[in-house]
Amino acid sequence: MNSPLYWDNEASDALQRMLDSYPAIYLLCDTNTKKHCLPLLYNICSKTRKITTFCIPTGEKNKNLTTLNHIWQFLFEQKAIRKSLLLCLGGGILCDMGGFAAATWKRGIDFALIPTTLMAQADAAIGGKTAINFNQVKNQIGLFQPAVSTLFFTDLLHSLPQKELRSGFAEMLKHGLISDAKYWDRLQKLNSIDNILQEPQLIRQSAVIKQKITSQDFKEQNLRLILNFGHTLGHAIESATKGRISHGEAVIQGMQAAARLSFEKGMLSSDDEKKIREGLSKFYGKNNIFTSISAAQLLPYLQHDKKRDNSSFNFTLLKKIGEAKPNLHVSEGDIRKIWDNQPQ
Amino acid sequence: MNSPLYWDNEASDALQRMLDSYPAIYLLCDTNTKKHCLPLLYNICSKTRKITTFCIPTGEKNKNLTTLNHIWQFLFEQKAIRKSLLLCLGGGILCDMGGFAAATWKRGIDFALIPTTLMAQADAAIGGKTAINFNQVKNQIGLFQPAVSTLFFTDLLHSLPQKELRSGFAEMLKHGLISDAKYWDRLQKLNSIDNILQEPQLIRQSAVIKQKITSQDFKEQNLRLILNFGHTLGHAIESATKGRISHGEAVIQGMQAAARLSFEKGMLSSDDEKKIREGLSKFYGKNNIFTSISAAQLLPYLQHDKKRDNSSFNFTLLKKIGEAKPNLHVSEGDIRKIWDNQPQ
Repeated sequence: MNSPLYWDNEASDALQRMLDSYPAIYLLCDTNTKKHCLPLLYNICSKTRKITTFCIPTGEKNKNLTTLNHIWQFLFEQKAIRKSLLLCLGGGILCDMGGFAAATWKRGIDFALIPTTLMAQADAAIGGKTAINFNQVKNQIGLFQPAVSTLFFTDLLHSLPQKELRSGFAEMLKHGLISDAKYWDRLQKLNSIDNILQEPQLIRQSAVIKQKITSQDFKEQNLRLILNFGHTLGHAIESATKGRISHGEAVIQGMQAAARLSFEKGMLSSDDEKKIREGLSKFYGKNNIFTSISAAQLLPYLQHDKKRDNSSFNFTLLKKIGEAKPNLHVSEGDIRKIWDNQPQ
Repeated sequence: MNSPLYWDNEASDALQRMLDSYPAIYLLCDTNTKKHCLPLLYNICSKTRKITTFCIPTGEKNKNLTTLNHIWQFLFEQKAIRKSLLLCLGGGILCDMGGFAAATWKRGIDFALIPTTLMAQADAAIGGKTAINFNQVKNQIGLFQPAVSTLFFTDLLHSLPQKELRSGFAEMLKHGLISDAKYWDRLQKLNSIDNILQEPQLIRQSAVIKQKITSQDFKEQNLRLILNFGHTLGHAIESATKGRISHGEAVIQGMQAAARLSFEKGMLSSDDEKKIREGLSKFYGKNNIFTSISAAQLLPYLQHDKKRDNSSFNFTLLKKIGEAKPNLHVSEGDIRKIWDNQPQ
């Protein structure tokens, strides 16, 4: 059920094949990708200039029904037929929304993703999750629907601001923590997050780890839940802090807290918990969940988490660096406890 | 990919099993089914009284994003978890909307359908199509997603007004025309549409014909398109007449015209075309598409039909009674021609 992934030259070829085979192609971009990424796409393939583009506003606050409605309205006005293709040129937010709009237009037209941020290339564009937020709660409405192709152009990353790199790199660290200790070690050898742009094979490896996990459990029945490591708390932090903390930073804090929970529940050694804490701090500094927010502020935002079972929260925790276990029950008490027993 | 179908006693048992196995169950009804159908459901199974119900307004004009948003809002307020079940108690419109809301809530919760109209029992509730209208154009946004179960209670049909029977019966005639000449003949033996309530096995057979076709081509790549017989024009009539003509009556007129097109294109014998014309008139009178609307009024509403290819309209036509052929190209000229060469 997964989407085929193509990099650079292979991605150019795949794009050309799509331009030749679909009778109607539309492109969704946002104000950033229109300025910084669309020209590069035009350079790759002159035919892309003939595609009708539609531009949506950027940002998590626009990942909602209003923007979705605008995309549907665009497809409506274009009289987009079932055999159309929607190219989504953007970060995770745009790819999530564009994928959902396409998957529901006339009961589903094809879409292809061209991720333009480190976050999207290393993580979000892989695995077929599409969604919008609802009542400010993340990804409450959506679908599992794979893109027909996912095209990675490494050059797109060079114009990214530092905070985008910080955000995406968090997911790369996560992929190491949950399933590949050697990959975690390789990331730890970088001097700073910026250096990742000189090591594109590390970005590609992150996408491949994600692809491997999602292809084994496309609909998130079990294994795939390990990708939520750090995210159950991370999403709650994002909601509770009204977007003041970026997704990546929130996930870093969520992973620190989830590692702490793993240790408190006797699953993770204190040695590994310390390595994780220091390995995350190396790149993200000493800011942590305990200084960002209180347990009391955070807990109400956990109520709507969609992996929550009725009586307790459903967490992914770590057994060691490189091995995660999904579907573990964590109580409100467990969460309050890590605030009381903070690492020194 | 199709949903299992259960009738009467078997449906009661299936309902009981669902009530026992889902941790959270919600029921979607409308003002009609709340009054006329919910009490019967309560009689069947006392546990259903404990289900939280949500009532939406009836009618095609409410099959839109606003009502969909209300259903999502209900699920949000109920904190509906992924393991929830949504029971949809209503006609085709409610089942289409409830199915879509469920299939997109948290990337998909289960839903079961309890069709309450002849149209829904004989046709609409079978085959996994979910949708809402968009800009007054039918079913522009939706998904193919099968219900976990479809439960038929024949008793629900006895409170239906005559116009509902007329609407549903049109689809039963269609099932005969496109794939079962013997079934068409059996329907022709009825003295009036009302008599169908004394012949529940004919209703069941209609559902079974639909199930057989949709199970061979769930995503409507080819064979399933035969179910659109009469609908390409029928939908356009509905849109062009702003709902003054019911779906069933519009489909009858669409089938008359499509049979005429089949004849004009040399596919259908004049004998069969006459039998169809008379067989439809027997139950629906002499009103036809040619007296309802002009070709010029109709054509603009064909533009948005989602089975339309770029250069021509994509039609299902008949080779004989009981055999249809999908994916035939019909031009604007072909359509104008049948107005000029009307049967006498």
